[in-house]
Amino acid sequence: MALQEVFQEISSADFFYRNRDIAGFTNPTRAIYSTIRELVENSLDACEIREIPPDIYLRISHESGPTDGPGIYRVHIEDNGIGIPHDIIPSAFGQVLFGSKYKLRQTRGTFGLGGKMAILYGQITTHGQATIMSSTGPTKVHRYDLTIDIQKNKPEVASHKTISNDTRWHGAVIEFSTEADYTRAMAKIIDYLMQTAIVAPYATITYVDPRGRLYRFDRATVQMPKPPHETLPHPYGVDVETMKRLIELTGERTMQAFMRTHFHRVGNTIAASFLQQVEIPPKKNPKKLTPDEIVRIVNAMKSYKFLAPDASCLSPLGEELLEAGIRKELSPEFVAVYQRKPSAYSGFPFIVEVGIAYGGQIKSGEGIKLYRFANKIPLLFDEASDVSWKVVNTEIDWRHYKASSDMPIAVFVHICSTKVPYKTVGKEFIADRPDVEREVLNAVREVARRLSLFLSKKIHIAHDKRRLDVFQKYLPKIAVFSSKLAEKGKPPDVSPLLRSVLMYEEKESEDDQGQDVE
Amino acid sequence: MALQEVFQEISSADFFYRNRDIAGFTNPTRAIYSTIRELVENSLDACEIREIPPDIYLRISHESGPTDGPGIYRVHIEDNGIGIPHDIIPSAFGQVLFGSKYKLRQTRGTFGLGGKMAILYGQITTHGQATIMSSTGPTKVHRYDLTIDIQKNKPEVASHKTISNDTRWHGAVIEFSTEADYTRAMAKIIDYLMQTAIVAPYATITYVDPRGRLYRFDRATVQMPKPPHETLPHPYGVDVETMKRLIELTGERTMQAFMRTHFHRVGNTIAASFLQQVEIPPKKNPKKLTPDEIVRIVNAMKSYKFLAPDASCLSPLGEELLEAGIRKELSPEFVAVYQRKPSAYSGFPFIVEVGIAYGGQIKSGEGIKLYRFANKIPLLFDEASDVSWKVVNTEIDWRHYKASSDMPIAVFVHICSTKVPYKTVGKEFIADRPDVEREVLNAVREVARRLSLFLSKKIHIAHDKRRLDVFQKYLPKIAVFSSKLAEKGKPPDVSPLLRSVLMYEEKESEDDQGQDVE
Repeated sequence: MALQEVFQEISSADFFYRNRDIAGFTNPTRAIYSTIRELVENSLDACEIREIPPDIYLRISHESGPTDGPGIYRVHIEDNGIGIPHDIIPSAFGQVLFGSKYKLRQTRGTFGLGGKMAILYGQITTHGQATIMSSTGPTKVHRYDLTIDIQKNKPEVASHKTISNDTRWHGAVIEFSTEADYTRAMAKIIDYLMQTAIVAPYATITYVDPRGRLYRFDRATVQMPKPPHETLPHPYGVDVETMKRLIELTGERTMQAFMRTHFHRVGNTIAASFLQQVEIPPKKNPKKLTPDEIVRIVNAMKSYKFLAPDASCLSPLGEELLEAGIRKELSPEFVAVYQRKPSAYSGFPFIVEVGIAYGGQIKSGEGIKLYRFANKIPLLFDEASDVSWKVVNTEIDWRHYKASSDMPIAVFVHICSTKVPYKTVGKEFIADRPDVEREVLNAVREVARRLSLFLSKKIHIAHDKRRLDVFQKYLPKIAVFSSKLAEKGKPPDVSPLLRSVLMYEEKESEDDQGQDVE
Repeated sequence: MALQEVFQEISSADFFYRNRDIAGFTNPTRAIYSTIRELVENSLDACEIREIPPDIYLRISHESGPTDGPGIYRVHIEDNGIGIPHDIIPSAFGQVLFGSKYKLRQTRGTFGLGGKMAILYGQITTHGQATIMSSTGPTKVHRYDLTIDIQKNKPEVASHKTISNDTRWHGAVIEFSTEADYTRAMAKIIDYLMQTAIVAPYATITYVDPRGRLYRFDRATVQMPKPPHETLPHPYGVDVETMKRLIELTGERTMQAFMRTHFHRVGNTIAASFLQQVEIPPKKNPKKLTPDEIVRIVNAMKSYKFLAPDASCLSPLGEELLEAGIRKELSPEFVAVYQRKPSAYSGFPFIVEVGIAYGGQIKSGEGIKLYRFANKIPLLFDEASDVSWKVVNTEIDWRHYKASSDMPIAVFVHICSTKVPYKTVGKEFIADRPDVEREVLNAVREVARRLSLFLSKKIHIAHDKRRLDVFQKYLPKIAVFSSKLAEKGKPPDVSPLLRSVLMYEEKESEDDQGQDVE
């Protein structure tokens, strides 16, 4: 009966190796999808930070094993991003929880985990090395072959070479082998790339699949959204730990200066008034705060009326680019887009942008199709757990907007924030935080209203067309009959009359923002 | 234009601090729920490992701040489990990714994360210390006051005392302050404790809430399920990394002995036959395998016909305990329980147990109520993403079983495994792995069939009762009328006749497993 527990410590790489399901690496189908997704997102982030229109080249080729089940595939991706400084390459690709995404800034990646998980999954299924080539633009390109020591969470560099870089190329190339059930994952991968093309219409993505087929998503514009920038923490989102860290780091000698320097939207006046309310002298040295005072300050921060977070650090797509993306990939008959004013939850600013589209390549009879995006990432899995699904399927009464689920309608929801409230490390769905839910609901209502105007007009036009058909059929007959009745020889020419009805119809249709009507 | 990324390394404690949403610590409502849940689960695990009927005492008291929104509460929990060796207490409570749950064994905890996240959340919201008292049964109880150094992921012990332990008590007491929106979380916490009482009917749980109200869930039995035990990895679940680690650790000198010693359900014969197929000499030293050979062996393992994983390492509840739990908490009119035979996914054994209940305290008119459990944990959130929800709501045609969603019906699904396929660190829902889905579907069908028999009989009995009512009403009248017609003085006594009909009805009802029929 001396049964006792054996305790052990594991590295963070080991933790994510053991629990790779939670990062989206559940099985060979899901793993190849997550691999592509994480690599493409890192590439896009590396371009957008310096407003470089992304050129991404992706290739997957079959290496060995079956193609109708899990086999071994080679993954290759190239981008024209800013590149990774060469001394950082090993850790950036071979060490979990090492990265550039651990700050308050809108990026696709948030966990600093995806790229390494892709390489780690390749390694544990093929025992192979990953090859990384990168340059930030100077005279050398650096090439590393490496593996991850999972138990120690450290990169193991097998070789490091430099190659001359006459063209001053900047960007990154990553290549490794991995287990994949490509056939099963294919539809989702193509869907992912297509939706990425909608939400990043300024990117050109070229993809060569294992059968050698070329998929090319050309950019529709070189206009780029302005890049996101880092922001200070807003008082509403601050906890005791953040406060302690700021106090440790600060060079400020007074609380008033400390508040002003380290918090988002806190100026001199607000700092003074806040400190007075919480009964801390403005001249007090922050390093001399007692633990109780720290707790008192943090608690007071949650209820004090600070200015709302400023969203200027965010990089939404903008109505114009969102519309361009939707038109480019789906060629719909009608599109409406709408960007809400910035809002905030728990001190994190966010912006909701939505679109609605009708017809074109959108299928009918399958319910309202929902496209979900967060920080310009398409979200494809676990739709029913997402806040946008909840809004579109349970909170909007579509009949109210003359729409129904058998019409070819698609709704697009893009949420961007310095911290997207994902519920999983796999970044698949967004929690229904009340503030976020309210913004999504109001945004979708607005575009639904515009759709409803379009649909009314469409019904009206169809009605007019039927009326015109009746005119065309009966007017000549009435003309003949009337002339016989009046005992005139030749019936009057009805064509000017018909033409005038027709012109009236066409004019009305042109007014309608130029969409095509059959 | 010299914009470059700044890279940094963060500790695993820092990672989970930044991303506490993914571990279920999203906001003060959810955090207090997760806190209670993680602490109760650790306590139950600490008792069951040595078949000690758990006695758990939980108390939450209000300390400061509002009670109708986020305030500060004190959490206190005591158990009579095996206790934690005193030298390990600081790391077990103050270091993320340090624990006893990192092996192939059925436990409630799987990530070694929950208890520390509860303490960490308390610390970042109140700046307070956690107090842990524990003994494994000898003459001393150890008491630690500690905090977590989040940036270093190390415990910081503020004080360590010993107290004499004359009663040879073993167990653990944990106490700390934390921010909580208790009022909002209350219903879920009570629901969680009630469902825990269903799935652990051998535990007594006493809970004193912030208003001083006592909730007591008494054990219905002292019979305990046999404790789970650790198992070897099954070849189907092995990847290159696991293989490398086993080779590093092994003392075996030949591949045949290596296979036999380190893999689940691999004996001499199977080892020999497998090695022959994969063309590795049985006498080869495992430490001399080339990387290519390792990959070849791992790939071959996935397709070779090994014996299925053995579920004897699992600790299901058993039909008797499941029924006892359901009866104890819901007093239904009818219960059926059913345990499927063990099955496996990706080399991990699992067992599905289900129950169905009708009437009693189950509400009607709200759809079929689903209770989900995994390794004896009730799962309360994100129901619609769970495999059991999918089965009960989209795959079973309840009309086929004479049931409908407005009847007072509850379905209970318990999945136990050495590795439950959770989709989130918050352990809220189970992925729809095809093998798991099939087992759940078959199990629910079986109990639905038994429910359908009960419902048929119920309809039949209701019909008979109406018939008896007719007899009771008209037989005496017929008797009077007949005797008048026959000109006899006194009508015959119909009561023996009625009694015989009645007895027939009662007999039939008793045959029916003794459930109550009004």
